[in-house]
Amino acid sequence: MISFESDYITGAHPRILQRLVETNLEPLTGYGTDLYCESAREKIKNACECPTAEVEFLAGGTQTNSVVISTMLQDYEGVIAAKTGHINYHEAGAIEFAGHKVIELPHKEGKLQLDSLKQYLHDFYADANHEHMVFPGMVYLSYPTEYGTLYSRKELTELSELCASFHIPLFMDGARLGYALTSPESDLTLPDIARLCDVFYIGGTKAGALCGEAIVFTRQNKPSHFMTSVKRRGALLAKGRLLGVQFDTLFTNDLYFEISRHAITMAEKLKSIFHEKGCPFYLESPTNQQFIILENMQMEKLREHVRFGFWEKYDDSHTVVRFATCWSTTEKDLNTLRQLLSEL
Amino acid sequence: MISFESDYITGAHPRILQRLVETNLEPLTGYGTDLYCESAREKIKNACECPTAEVEFLAGGTQTNSVVISTMLQDYEGVIAAKTGHINYHEAGAIEFAGHKVIELPHKEGKLQLDSLKQYLHDFYADANHEHMVFPGMVYLSYPTEYGTLYSRKELTELSELCASFHIPLFMDGARLGYALTSPESDLTLPDIARLCDVFYIGGTKAGALCGEAIVFTRQNKPSHFMTSVKRRGALLAKGRLLGVQFDTLFTNDLYFEISRHAITMAEKLKSIFHEKGCPFYLESPTNQQFIILENMQMEKLREHVRFGFWEKYDDSHTVVRFATCWSTTEKDLNTLRQLLSEL
Amino acid sequence: MISFESDYITGAHPRILQRLVETNLEPLTGYGTDLYCESAREKIKNACECPTAEVEFLAGGTQTNSVVISTMLQDYEGVIAAKTGHINYHEAGAIEFAGHKVIELPHKEGKLQLDSLKQYLHDFYADANHEHMVFPGMVYLSYPTEYGTLYSRKELTELSELCASFHIPLFMDGARLGYALTSPESDLTLPDIARLCDVFYIGGTKAGALCGEAIVFTRQNKPSHFMTSVKRRGALLAKGRLLGVQFDTLFTNDLYFEISRHAITMAEKLKSIFHEKGCPFYLESPTNQQFIILENMQMEKLREHVRFGFWEKYDDSHTVVRFATCWSTTEKDLNTLRQLLSEL
Amino acid sequence: MISFESDYITGAHPRILQRLVETNLEPLTGYGTDLYCESAREKIKNACECPTAEVEFLAGGTQTNSVVISTMLQDYEGVIAAKTGHINYHEAGAIEFAGHKVIELPHKEGKLQLDSLKQYLHDFYADANHEHMVFPGMVYLSYPTEYGTLYSRKELTELSELCASFHIPLFMDGARLGYALTSPESDLTLPDIARLCDVFYIGGTKAGALCGEAIVFTRQNKPSHFMTSVKRRGALLAKGRLLGVQFDTLFTNDLYFEISRHAITMAEKLKSIFHEKGCPFYLESPTNQQFIILENMQMEKLREHVRFGFWEKYDDSHTVVRFATCWSTTEKDLNTLRQLLSEL
Repeated sequence: MISFESDYITGAHPRILQRLVETNLEPLTGYGTDLYCESAREKIKNACECPTAEVEFLAGGTQTNSVVISTMLQDYEGVIAAKTGHINYHEAGAIEFAGHKVIELPHKEGKLQLDSLKQYLHDFYADANHEHMVFPGMVYLSYPTEYGTLYSRKELTELSELCASFHIPLFMDGARLGYALTSPESDLTLPDIARLCDVFYIGGTKAGALCGEAIVFTRQNKPSHFMTSVKRRGALLAKGRLLGVQFDTLFTNDLYFEISRHAITMAEKLKSIFHEKGCPFYLESPTNQQFIILENMQMEKLREHVRFGFWEKYDDSHTVVRFATCWSTTEKDLNTLRQLLSEL
Repeated sequence: MISFESDYITGAHPRILQRLVETNLEPLTGYGTDLYCESAREKIKNACECPTAEVEFLAGGTQTNSVVISTMLQDYEGVIAAKTGHINYHEAGAIEFAGHKVIELPHKEGKLQLDSLKQYLHDFYADANHEHMVFPGMVYLSYPTEYGTLYSRKELTELSELCASFHIPLFMDGARLGYALTSPESDLTLPDIARLCDVFYIGGTKAGALCGEAIVFTRQNKPSHFMTSVKRRGALLAKGRLLGVQFDTLFTNDLYFEISRHAITMAEKLKSIFHEKGCPFYLESPTNQQFIILENMQMEKLREHVRFGFWEKYDDSHTVVRFATCWSTTEKDLNTLRQLLSEL
Repeated sequence: MISFESDYITGAHPRILQRLVETNLEPLTGYGTDLYCESAREKIKNACECPTAEVEFLAGGTQTNSVVISTMLQDYEGVIAAKTGHINYHEAGAIEFAGHKVIELPHKEGKLQLDSLKQYLHDFYADANHEHMVFPGMVYLSYPTEYGTLYSRKELTELSELCASFHIPLFMDGARLGYALTSPESDLTLPDIARLCDVFYIGGTKAGALCGEAIVFTRQNKPSHFMTSVKRRGALLAKGRLLGVQFDTLFTNDLYFEISRHAITMAEKLKSIFHEKGCPFYLESPTNQQFIILENMQMEKLREHVRFGFWEKYDDSHTVVRFATCWSTTEKDLNTLRQLLSEL
Repeated sequence: MISFESDYITGAHPRILQRLVETNLEPLTGYGTDLYCESAREKIKNACECPTAEVEFLAGGTQTNSVVISTMLQDYEGVIAAKTGHINYHEAGAIEFAGHKVIELPHKEGKLQLDSLKQYLHDFYADANHEHMVFPGMVYLSYPTEYGTLYSRKELTELSELCASFHIPLFMDGARLGYALTSPESDLTLPDIARLCDVFYIGGTKAGALCGEAIVFTRQNKPSHFMTSVKRRGALLAKGRLLGVQFDTLFTNDLYFEISRHAITMAEKLKSIFHEKGCPFYLESPTNQQFIILENMQMEKLREHVRFGFWEKYDDSHTVVRFATCWSTTEKDLNTLRQLLSEL
């Protein structure tokens, strides 16, 4: 059985595990105050070329979205997202649990559109009754998006400038940030992200960590008493070292980007295999997730030997499925897949 | 200065005020336990032809939506509404404040569409990842809608049956219920509503009361310890008599429908006047709200003598405005309006 | 049947009802923007001798406590109150519903004690782990307290200074403020309250209004977009005039204090009657609520002709009951009570 | 530098790390559906002698308290806890963030008292106004308590019976459960806990895991769609294997109890050392946490070589400090401490 089900099918990259073993017996202080957290913070600030950034670690993506959004919004504000945004669809209402509305706007291949955002913001303030409405208090986008697509530098710059002109922070969900930055189609760098976003996070869970996301506040805008707010959301790990050691390792010797590049290389080969076998793409992404249309009988047959993600029904006889690569995807996995597809 | 700004521009219908004066000195128990609340409950149950209904009174519409929805939903559930639904647009995020998502679906002239609802519910349960999503726990609709449009008996029956087949309660926001039921285009009655909806409310604020909405739970489905839940939402009036006396009066000698019919009659005349003057309608509704397109200069001129509601920009030189009638609209108001329009 | 059950047993003071009738047909704008709200605001600012105060109206006490506290606290803060504070005991968890902790401190006859507050605040900041605790973000007290007792000018000044030294706003629940200010034992005035508190409210519901509380922000500290926050808590009345007209009347010709003085005079006579009849006091308050210990059989007998409040069990054969006076209490009520007590 | 600062100063027990390494490359499904989670569930059910139990894993203690309490309570309910209960003091208001009140009762050495609980429950239902109050919906206790003290079998049985008689679930916070069960003073077993509590959790973070708590619902009372509720609280780990592998290891070959017994043995020796050196105890607990009174100068001197926890100020010249043992405490650590204390 091989698996392309997601980018969190295996444990941690071996170098991360090794560092957890090496540091295991050192007595450290708790709650993110230990030296590995400190070291990881410094390395991330350097990688972002943003010496004034404030970096904090949380365990998972939904948790991070909920904590960041709900601590940065004012009471009367909501967060704008594309209809397909993870916070709008696949987080079980975590933002609403924390009391805030997700204001949904149309998307194009998962991307928030500058024009519709501009229109929304203008209309909101032009509306004589806007005091009866949820104020737009943040713009959320994912990079790469939930469809694996990318914003260009031009697009992100325009969105960033629009947000700035309305004094609304731009928040980037970077659960798979590495796969965007190392995509051959990306023209953005980590320092660009830090420059263009008011807050973003660097996903660890989907990039080789056991768990963990690194939030980067780029404008000295970390909410006051953030640790207390994290605690009251049940999101403060006692052994903060678990996150510190992992991110310290990820940002040592370029490991985070090495992992990401590997997954992208594997994804490019995966795409070739599907092309070679004549499987139509629902969406051929430039990152580590590919959306393929399979005939239902073929899908069931393939399922006997390969795990992949169900995405959505395409028509009565076809289904859209998702194949993802990650740090642990091997050439052997790809060869097995090629073989299985040939046998269909 | 005359006003068609809304249906809450004046105080209470004189018969309501009179009863408040007559009962003023009677010492009564608080919090909705007094004899007028009891009497009003009985009269409403009779009017609904639903003897097992449970009736509770709250002060306003947003409050009622928030209390009903948040006490009836389970933790993991949200409420489905048309994009234009009041809870989605004009309640400043009250549902989200109480922790729940408004799941928005497309609308047609303010109406939730059977097909899109059916599709949504089917897709939800077909989605292998739906445990990561907000469960649809209620369907919300407004009757009349925010655009003054109406569901037909056939439409409401189909929506009701669809909800029942998914075991999801159907909740009707009846902030302006009387104006729907007395519209010449309506083919529904109050007992129909009680039969087809699991919970709904009869709006008082916009139909001649100083404040007040009467919630009707039609399936013996009033949440346990509802009074306590109301209290903790800050929605329990100490002098519950204020609501009891008003609804007791509204449901004595057909006053609620008398008020509603008057407003509808006035609305029909209002429509004639606009037609007569050649003003184009953005939406000509069968209820008490009319949406007119005015040229901006004319709008400004008219505003010097008439109050009306801003709805939305139509184009660079035109605006959509809302004219509403209510219990206190007079023939004289209409004549003045006709005169003013002639002078434009 | 006579009633001393509470101070909200009857409707509105006749002058208030009269003004509601007189202004009933005037078309007014909604949501607290009408001229009566404006006029009431001005009169209250004058009565407070605080020209920079910001005044807002809400419908009830629990609602007001919840709105004020939850809009003024930061995410990581809670509100300190005496164990017996209304927000801690009798509001069904309204503060917690809005996400915040009530930090309870000991009380003495319902009063928060300076020493225990000082100790709590010092200990909190001295605690090395206080980042894991709820930050004290506000001090709540009731004047008069839930036991009808009063803070002296000296006590309130000391509490106010302590709060200021910790940069924590002092919030006074004035649901029965008039009964405190007109008590013969009070040495505080309304301008004193405005000077010593950062925010407080003037209760209408329990002082002759149908409903309504007037919040006074005394330090230009009204939260941003307060109206939107009120709306999202379901607390914004469409016909804001209902509150505006009532408070405008209450603050015309000293009516608020006239009502309060009347209730106090009646309370003094009530106390005399109980003394005369040898009924022991559980707590003889200087305001409009008296707590009497009745033998259970006597209590049951009295109940046949008089309504009063149950407070708590005293011992197996006695009960503490509450008698309250208000604007509508008459000499005749008192004479009837005296007669009934004689017959026990 | 040696450390007795807490029981989460080091990483994971070596056998846990080893299993994480061994299973690292296996592709597994996410979100707690993998075979290690399943295996761990079975082993825990066996250890509890409760085959119908439902077991779920979360990352940390505050998170677990918040998720369990807020998914099991009804809207109008709160949770009863001792004043010193972790949820009341040291979780930054996590329960209130989820909308519920912690109803605090007096404690004795950290233990909830049967009599005060009984009194509270009786008084609550006897109070004619209890519909205006937070309903008691759960009883929370910690075993061992925050002071390291223990409930006896008799005490827990009585509390359990009292809760049952009021139909209120009893929830045990077992963040340090192993240290209670292996204490020489304990007369309770894990199956006893499962029999007497409606829900409890077995703490991993403080007993040798990197993170993780195992919730045991003992009455087939796991809330519906629990996974969705966990997700919306940001508490669902994508790589659920991290928790599954750890608990599977902890409940293989008795490791959980082996770790706990080791810490208790070390704690007994620690106590001897303090006795030997004449250091007074603030509270000499039968579990792994000891509370010692140190003279401030001595404390500062000791701090140069040993880390320990600040608990509270004792008097102007003394401080209460906490020493904890855990899986990684060694004889060498104890010898070093003895040496350092001798040198004071």
